[in-house]
Amino acid sequence: MEKEFYKSYVDELRDTIQHGTKRGEFRKSNAFLGADASRTFSTVSNKLKLNKASDIKLFESLQPLNAISGKKVNYHLRPGAHPDFENLTDENSFENHYICSVFIDVKKSTNLFKKYNPVTVANIINVIQRAAVHTTWYFDGYIQRYHGDGLFAYFGGKNISMTEAVKSTLTATSFINYFMKNDLKKLFNEQGIENIYARIGIDIGEAEDVLWYKAGMGDCSEITTCSLHTSLASKMQGTATSNGIVVGNNMKVNSTLSDELFEHVRDVSGKVDSYAFEIPEESFYYKQWNFNWEKHLKSLPYIKTDATGNLYIQTKEKEENERMQKLIASTALINSGNAFTDRKGNITEVTTGVKNQDHRFHYE
Amino acid sequence: MEKEFYKSYVDELRDTIQHGTKRGEFRKSNAFLGADASRTFSTVSNKLKLNKASDIKLFESLQPLNAISGKKVNYHLRPGAHPDFENLTDENSFENHYICSVFIDVKKSTNLFKKYNPVTVANIINVIQRAAVHTTWYFDGYIQRYHGDGLFAYFGGKNISMTEAVKSTLTATSFINYFMKNDLKKLFNEQGIENIYARIGIDIGEAEDVLWYKAGMGDCSEITTCSLHTSLASKMQGTATSNGIVVGNNMKVNSTLSDELFEHVRDVSGKVDSYAFEIPEESFYYKQWNFNWEKHLKSLPYIKTDATGNLYIQTKEKEENERMQKLIASTALINSGNAFTDRKGNITEVTTGVKNQDHRFHYE
Repeated sequence: MEKEFYKSYVDELRDTIQHGTKRGEFRKSNAFLGADASRTFSTVSNKLKLNKASDIKLFESLQPLNAISGKKVNYHLRPGAHPDFENLTDENSFENHYICSVFIDVKKSTNLFKKYNPVTVANIINVIQRAAVHTTWYFDGYIQRYHGDGLFAYFGGKNISMTEAVKSTLTATSFINYFMKNDLKKLFNEQGIENIYARIGIDIGEAEDVLWYKAGMGDCSEITTCSLHTSLASKMQGTATSNGIVVGNNMKVNSTLSDELFEHVRDVSGKVDSYAFEIPEESFYYKQWNFNWEKHLKSLPYIKTDATGNLYIQTKEKEENERMQKLIASTALINSGNAFTDRKGNITEVTTGVKNQDHRFHYE
Repeated sequence: MEKEFYKSYVDELRDTIQHGTKRGEFRKSNAFLGADASRTFSTVSNKLKLNKASDIKLFESLQPLNAISGKKVNYHLRPGAHPDFENLTDENSFENHYICSVFIDVKKSTNLFKKYNPVTVANIINVIQRAAVHTTWYFDGYIQRYHGDGLFAYFGGKNISMTEAVKSTLTATSFINYFMKNDLKKLFNEQGIENIYARIGIDIGEAEDVLWYKAGMGDCSEITTCSLHTSLASKMQGTATSNGIVVGNNMKVNSTLSDELFEHVRDVSGKVDSYAFEIPEESFYYKQWNFNWEKHLKSLPYIKTDATGNLYIQTKEKEENERMQKLIASTALINSGNAFTDRKGNITEVTTGVKNQDHRFHYE
């Protein structure tokens, strides 16, 4: 079976959970602050060491992505440090530039405290965050800030077009939701943990609608955006279903993907809930859409589905290997003298095809 | 009339709104990126200069607070930099210490984009944030992070008891909600802006339930807490009504305030919604409470209500002045020979009292 994208993360997480310390034990023994707790923390967190460069890199199962694009991921960005806007340190300077804002909310993670002590919960959340952060980084996104176990990320910047940014955003968030809905769910079921899920809201604002500036006051500040579309991304996150992605109309307009991937948002009663924002007096109605990320993932050329329905990344190397294996098999067949060419031009052993002639070059 | 606490903020905000630029104008002229926009930004933001020490201080109307306590506010803390835990930069070090977590969500602020361009919205939000941040700082709170226009703050630390931290937290958030519900609402009504409001969730966790550690990975990290009670504070924020404060049971348990200030949380149908978190298998039910912040504010010794029902801060100097004025008036009355002492011992002109005798010392 092919390796699923997030296999390394799932393995890490399983290990974290199995070595984690259940809350009940501490409550009974009242030994949370004792030596045992420290030992547990070190044991578990040794696997999660954070500061070593080697440990902040994409885990192995995600590396095929790198192989496809040859992309270099910048592992050393602080939260809230989009490199294209770091010059805005003066409170009077500002800039208008388009940006794609992504809010990822992780729901029901409070239930982890029912079973585990805070150290174990922190370690579980850490691996989930890694999966999301690594995916964001890989697709050129920037972590603006952690929201507890959730994330606020920007996609796009000065050397990337809006359509490219939209595509990266939708693909990155599709990967993250795949992890949450499939890998994490399976693992949590296996470990008897109540399921947690993601809700994602995304929108892109054009330059004239997005202000980049230093918000806050004095040292208590951050470089961020003030934009209707950043606000709407956060709002639409609340509209998304479990492991759903809701996007603003600008995402659809700037997307080169099939319109079929954008579906109506419906409220609990099934009624279409079309608008994320409206100013009726001006007949301004801004639409929101459910993004069908599963369909999108399956449509990507480097994503394949294995026999059990799991997705995996088909690397170029792997693809080339498969082609070679096929060629070797055909050659062996021809050499055996039992090769037939079927109506599609494939070399087979099926005798209903045209028998290959000796010394006749089969792809003439 | 006495000066309301947040008068300077309201004045600043009124000015910001009146000098702000309406969205419509830009949409029509398409001139958002033009010189006019820059001019507007500079004009408005000159009043909001962020980096000068003089500008990050409490605005004048809040300064009476300082006069009461003589407290020194630290204006130079970055978000996420609680000074008592800044040593936790190594990913393997952690610490258990109680903390009070406060989540303030500002609702409906997206509607500001209906009327104003992003620069003006940013400036409006900035003044609202200042009111909240200054209040947090004044009551020894630490801004952990901005959540758009909302805030996540910690209260408490190594040299402050849990009961003191609980009291500061409840008072600070009462002040903030007073600003949102009274001053801001009045101003927004006056300026024809749709009302925005706050929802606040608060909880405190004891040391053994709160893990302080470096979350995230490598440079993309923050020193923060992992705790059921931090998570519940965030969750209870969503339970709060408009300008309401919902607190976890630990807040009530560690509070020296009257039990009457803590009221049952009710759902939309009016049914009591008692629990923020429960583990029925273990008969563990964690209660949540609506905190009656209006009652709390009015019970504070330095808060007075003026004739129109607005609250103001009674400084010691002011109190002393009032006492002196009263004494001077009584003395004048006695000297005039028309002084009467009423049944409560007050010197008045009301002739139903006992007539003061010449040379008879009136408070013998």
